Amino acid sequence: MHDIHEEEHFQSSDMVRDIVIGMADGLTVPFALAAGLSGAVDTNSIVITAGIAEIIAGSIAMGLGGYLAGKTEIDHYNSELKREYDEVEKVPEREKQEIRDVLADYGISKKLQDDVADELAQDKDKWVDFMMRFELSLDKPKPERARKSAANIAFSYVAGGLIPLSAYFFTEHPKDGLIISSVITIIALFIFGFFKSKVTGQPAIAGALRTTFVGAIAAAAAYYIASLIGS
Amino acid sequence: MHDIHEEEHFQSSDMVRDIVIGMADGLTVPFALAAGLSGAVDTNSIVITAGIAEIIAGSIAMGLGGYLAGKTEIDHYNSELKREYDEVEKVPEREKQEIRDVLADYGISKKLQDDVADELAQDKDKWVDFMMRFELSLDKPKPERARKSAANIAFSYVAGGLIPLSAYFFTEHPKDGLIISSVITIIALFIFGFFKSKVTGQPAIAGALRTTFVGAIAAAAAYYIASLIGS
Repeated sequence: MHDIHEEEHFQSSDMVRDIVIGMADGLTVPFALAAGLSGAVDTNSIVITAGIAEIIAGSIAMGLGGYLAGKTEIDHYNSELKREYDEVEKVPEREKQEIRDVLADYGISKKLQDDVADELAQDKDKWVDFMMRFELSLDKPKPERARKSAANIAFSYVAGGLIPLSAYFFTEHPKDGLIISSVITIIALFIFGFFKSKVTGQPAIAGALRTTFVGAIAAAAAYYIASLIGS
Repeated sequence: MHDIHEEEHFQSSDMVRDIVIGMADGLTVPFALAAGLSGAVDTNSIVITAGIAEIIAGSIAMGLGGYLAGKTEIDHYNSELKREYDEVEKVPEREKQEIRDVLADYGISKKLQDDVADELAQDKDKWVDFMMRFELSLDKPKPERARKSAANIAFSYVAGGLIPLSAYFFTEHPKDGLIISSVITIIALFIFGFFKSKVTGQPAIAGALRTTFVGAIAAAAAYYIASLIGS
């Protein structure tokens, strides 16, 4: 029961983390890009085309990039796992000393270090598990996560990016689009930052302000620099 | 000596990780955005303006966003640390049981679980350290990292993004810019992916192909969709 609960908790954290990663950038970067272009071009269609190109580029880079990074992490874990199995086989005394070193860092007495090392050494699977976690600080990655994670991140990026961009569909001129885009995106960033902080156990108002601040700074900087180039 | 070496190793990994994070996206997203716009607009100046707006937006979102995320991580660590200190003070028996549970997962005998728990409980700092690492899997964040990390990521994003964009400075038409941009960016992605894999201990050619693949897919998708909208 305890294990099942832990597992659920972890799964939902993973998904929340994916949505947070995708949406944080999805709300911020297309918003700032559109704001930047609004200061430099005269037609909404260019802002929309650039915004959609950015959303596609960003969601693929984050989603597919994240998927392949997850695959790489699994390969890395498996190659370290194989190496640890080799080491407990070939240099067991050195590996037992590493157990003692880990325990010594926590002030465990010499006698207990030896006893724990002796017991761990009787079961090679547990021994290797211990080394992976406590010597290498590697947690076992979940293979099925990589694909789901990629889809969650990409989808959240698209969903986030369409919020600032939507304002340009319903306005005539980029300057009007920018005003409406800024209002709805600032609100969206605040709400998103609030819930993001809630689910990660942080002070919610401070988190909401922080998220909004990053988006506003990025948009203002892009607008300012793009107007300089465009003029 | 051992500690100093470990520390150096970790520091350099952090910096390499920052550069990898910033440059992977910096090469990919501005490349794909510029490619997308090349399929939809007729003048290089729009591609360049949009590209620069994207580079500014992306580098601020990643850099400043990463900086604030690092700050949040430190807050999170400190609040969990405080909670663990409270718990070993107020519910020491429950916390000692948690030590035994951790050890039981590794097949350590009941007697040794008790002995280790008793020894750990004699030094509250070590005890809390043990719980942070083995119960909560939290490593102590380095406060000075957050700022450096933000600067590294932002700078790498800008450096990466200027590579694909540079082609549009020296060509007359977006179609020509796109061809040159694709050639230099594909080469840059391959070289970057190769070194990224080397420093992270992965098969280098496979990693280079993977990185190049993500960039090419993102650019092709952005180009295709933007031409549909732009036409």
